[in-house]
Amino acid sequence: DPAAPVDPAEADDFLRACYAENPRLGPVEPRLAIVRAQIAATGTYVHTPEELGHGAKMAWRNSSRCIGRLYWRSLVVLDRRRARTAEEIFSLLVRHLQVAGGAAPMSRLDATAGPPVERPPGTIRPVISVFAPAVPGRPHASVWNDQLVRYAGYVTEQGRRIGDPRNLAFTRAMEALGWKGKGEAFDILPLAIETPHEGVQLFDLPERAVLEVPVAHPEYGWFAELGIRWHAVPAISNMRLSIGGINYPLAPFNGWYMGTEIGSRNLADADRYDLVPLVARLMRLDTTSESTLWRDRALVEINRAVLWSFERAGVKISDHHTESARFMAHLRNEEKAGRQVPADWSWIVPPLSGGATPVFHRYYHEADLKPNFYLDAPARARAAGCPVAH
Amino acid sequence: DPAAPVDPAEADDFLRACYAENPRLGPVEPRLAIVRAQIAATGTYVHTPEELGHGAKMAWRNSSRCIGRLYWRSLVVLDRRRARTAEEIFSLLVRHLQVAGGAAPMSRLDATAGPPVERPPGTIRPVISVFAPAVPGRPHASVWNDQLVRYAGYVTEQGRRIGDPRNLAFTRAMEALGWKGKGEAFDILPLAIETPHEGVQLFDLPERAVLEVPVAHPEYGWFAELGIRWHAVPAISNMRLSIGGINYPLAPFNGWYMGTEIGSRNLADADRYDLVPLVARLMRLDTTSESTLWRDRALVEINRAVLWSFERAGVKISDHHTESARFMAHLRNEEKAGRQVPADWSWIVPPLSGGATPVFHRYYHEADLKPNFYLDAPARARAAGCPVAH
Ligand code: HEM
Ligand code: HEM
Repeated sequence: DPAAPVDPAEADDFLRACYAENPRLGPVEPRLAIVRAQIAATGTYVHTPEELGHGAKMAWRNSSRCIGRLYWRSLVVLDRRRARTAEEIFSLLVRHLQVAGGAAPMSRLDATAGPPVERPPGTIRPVISVFAPAVPGRPHASVWNDQLVRYAGYVTEQGRRIGDPRNLAFTRAMEALGWKGKGEAFDILPLAIETPHEGVQLFDLPERAVLEVPVAHPEYGWFAELGIRWHAVPAISNMRLSIGGINYPLAPFNGWYMGTEIGSRNLADADRYDLVPLVARLMRLDTTSESTLWRDRALVEINRAVLWSFERAGVKISDHHTESARFMAHLRNEEKAGRQVPADWSWIVPPLSGGATPVFHRYYHEADLKPNFYLDAPARARAAGCPVAH
Repeated sequence: DPAAPVDPAEADDFLRACYAENPRLGPVEPRLAIVRAQIAATGTYVHTPEELGHGAKMAWRNSSRCIGRLYWRSLVVLDRRRARTAEEIFSLLVRHLQVAGGAAPMSRLDATAGPPVERPPGTIRPVISVFAPAVPGRPHASVWNDQLVRYAGYVTEQGRRIGDPRNLAFTRAMEALGWKGKGEAFDILPLAIETPHEGVQLFDLPERAVLEVPVAHPEYGWFAELGIRWHAVPAISNMRLSIGGINYPLAPFNGWYMGTEIGSRNLADADRYDLVPLVARLMRLDTTSESTLWRDRALVEINRAVLWSFERAGVKISDHHTESARFMAHLRNEEKAGRQVPADWSWIVPPLSGGATPVFHRYYHEADLKPNFYLDAPARARAAGCPVAH
C-alpha cells in the first residue's frame, strides 16, 4: 500500500544491509536512530544520496527476471528527487536517454552522470533516474508509458495493423489527448507525464534523445528493404522502485538490449511485428509443414539481422549466449559474496535456443528480496491505454 | 513412504473421481465400502482393471511436465500385475516396446493390447505396462534403467567420450555386472531387472524390440556420414505410478518423441552428444563470435535432420510447434471439462525457439494432483549408476 507510512522494520533491514555492504558509510547505528525518529515523527524518512544509489543497485541485483545483473555495481544513479513539474521531469527524461548513451555523446551531459567522457553514441550505460518518493496518502507524478521509447500501433480502416500492436490502446489514448502520429510503422510515441498539479501532458521526444538502428541482414539483401528499425535503449518507466520502505513511483531505468528481446519477441511475436511468416516467405522456406522448422529458421535470421545491425552501427547489444554466460558469472560472484541470487527461470531463459544456454540447465532460488522493482496494477493499466486508472 | 499402508482418503478421492468420470462403472458407493473394508483388513486394496486403466490415464493427465497430454484418453494400459520373475518382466518389457510400435507389427502382439491391427512399424502408440503394486514393507521388483532404450557411454583411455555421456556411470555399473558393450556411439544398454528373490539380472534387448532411425539431413549430405541415429520410443522406466494410494514402482510408459528432445537435448547438450560445434564447423559457420548465432543455426539444422529422418523412415515424431498447438487444445478441452491443467512452464516450453510457441505466452496452474508419476531418490540413484541404492 503506497499510502501507508514507512515500515520501520523494512527501513532497518535495508539500512543494515546497505551499510554492511558499504563500510565507507560508517556505522549504521547512528543512522538507524535518526531514521527511526524521522519515521516516528513524519511517517517517512529521506534517503541520503549514497543510500539511494546503493538501494537502486540492490533493487537491480534483486530483479529476479533480469539476466543482465552481472554489472549491477555499475548502475548510474541520477538523483532527480527535486523535480516537480512535467517540464522538469520531461527534460530530465531526455537527459536520461542521453546519459544512457542512446543519443548525444556524454560530454554534453550533466555532472551527476559522472565525469563527462567523450564517448561515441551507442555505448549504452545502465542508468536509473530516481524522481520524488511517494508521500503517504498524496498523489505523485508518473509516466504513463511503460518504456520511454515505444512505437505507436494503428489499425487502418481496412483492418490492417501498422506499427507495434502492443501499443494500440496506448496509442489511441495518446490520440484522445490530442497527439497525432504519422501512421507509420515506427512512430515514436510521446511521453505522457502526469503530475498532481498539472494533470497529464504529452511531450514529443526530440531526435537527439532517441538513437535508432535500421535492421539489415549480413547476407539477405532484401532484409534492409523491409524498413525495420529498433531503438537502442530499453528504458522501463512504469515500475515502482522500493527501497527500505520508501516508494519511488517514477524511477525509469535502462540497460542495453539483449538481441532476443528485439529479434525473438518485439519483431517476431504474432501480436507484435509478426515478421516470422514474412521473412520465411522471403527466404523461400517450405512453410507447408511445421516440421521443416521454417519458423525456427526465420527466427534465427531475424535475430542475426538485429545483432549484426546493432554491431555495424556501433550500438551496444548483447546476444543471449554471452548474456547467459555473464549471468552464470554473476551467480558465481554472488555466491562468493555469500548472497543468494533470486531468479525466475521462465524469464531468465532466453526465448531463442533456450536449451543451448547454460542458464537453462539448473534451478534457481525464487524469492522476493527488497529493494526491488514492482509493477503496480494502475501503472500496468495506464500503459495498456486506460486513461482513468489510478 | 511406499512402506506405509494405503491412505483411505486418497483411495476415496481417486475412486470418486474415477467413477464420476466413467459413469459406465456404475455408482461409487458400493465400491467405496469394499475398498474401505479391504484397507482396514489388509492395509491395502486391489484396483479393478478399469480403475487401473483410468488411473494410469489420470496420472498422465496430471503430469505437469508433459506437453503431450492431449491424447491422454488413448493411453494403452497393459495390466502386468501378475508378472513376478525377471524373465517374465523382461519378456513383457519387450512386448511393451513392440506394442508401442517401435518394432514388430501389431499382429504379432498379445490381446491385451487391443485388436491386432496390421500396422507398419513406426506408428508409435502411447503405452504403459503396470507391474505389481508395492506391498507395504516388502521389497519390490524394479528396472534400474531410467528408460527402456538408452545408449551406453564410455570414456577411452585417452579421455575421449564415446556414446551418451549421460549414461557413463550406468554403463560402468552394467560392466561391473558383467555386461560388455561394443564401445561404439550407439550401443543399446541392457535392461537391469531386479526382483526380490533373484537380485539384479541383465537382459539384452532383442533387435525386434528396438526400432532406430539413422539421422540424415535433407540438404547437407555430410550429415548422414556422422553416423548419428536415435531410437523411436522414449519409454521412462523408473518412475513410480501412484493411483488412489497404491504405488506401482514398476510402470514403464512411453509416448512418441517430440523432435527437440532428440535434436535440442540428447544430440545437442554439451554433456550429451554435443553435436553443435561439430555441425557448425561442417556448415562452415563463423564461430569466432557468439553473435553470429552459429549455435542457434546449427541447432535448428540438427532438429531439422531429426524430424526429416524420422518422417522419411515412417516413424512417428512431432515437432515442437505442432505439439505446442496440441497442448493449447488440451488446455481448452480440459477447461471445457471443468478441470484445471497443472503444468510446469519450464518443462512445457520447448528448448528450441521457446518464444515462437504459443505455450510460452502464458502462465500455468501449478499443482501436484494425483494420480501421478514420481521419481524416487533410489530410482534416480540407480539410473545414475549407483548399484547399492534402495
Ligand atoms: C545492462 C544490461 C541489461 C540487460 C542485458 C538486461 C536484460 C534483461 C532481460 C532480457 C529482461 C527480460 C525482458 C523481457 O523478457 O521482457 C530483463 C528484465 C528486467 N530487468 Fe534487466 N537487463 C539489463 C539492465 C537492467 C537494469 C539496469 C535494471 C534496473 C536497474 C534491470 C532490471 C530489470 C527488471 C526489473 C526486469 C523485469 C521487467 C519486467 O518485469 O517486465 N535490468 N532484463
Ligand atoms: C504421446 C506423446 C508424448 C509426447 C510428445 C510427450 C512429450 C513430453 C516431453 C517433451 C516431455 C519433457 C521431457 C524432457 O524434457 O525431458 C515429457 C515429460 C513427461 N511426460 Fe510426456 N509425452 C508423451 C506421452 C506421455 C505419456 C504416455 C506419459 C505417461 C503415461 C507421459 C508422461 C510424462 C511425464 C511423467 C513426464 C515428466 C518426466 C520427468 O519428470 O522426467 N508422457 N513428455
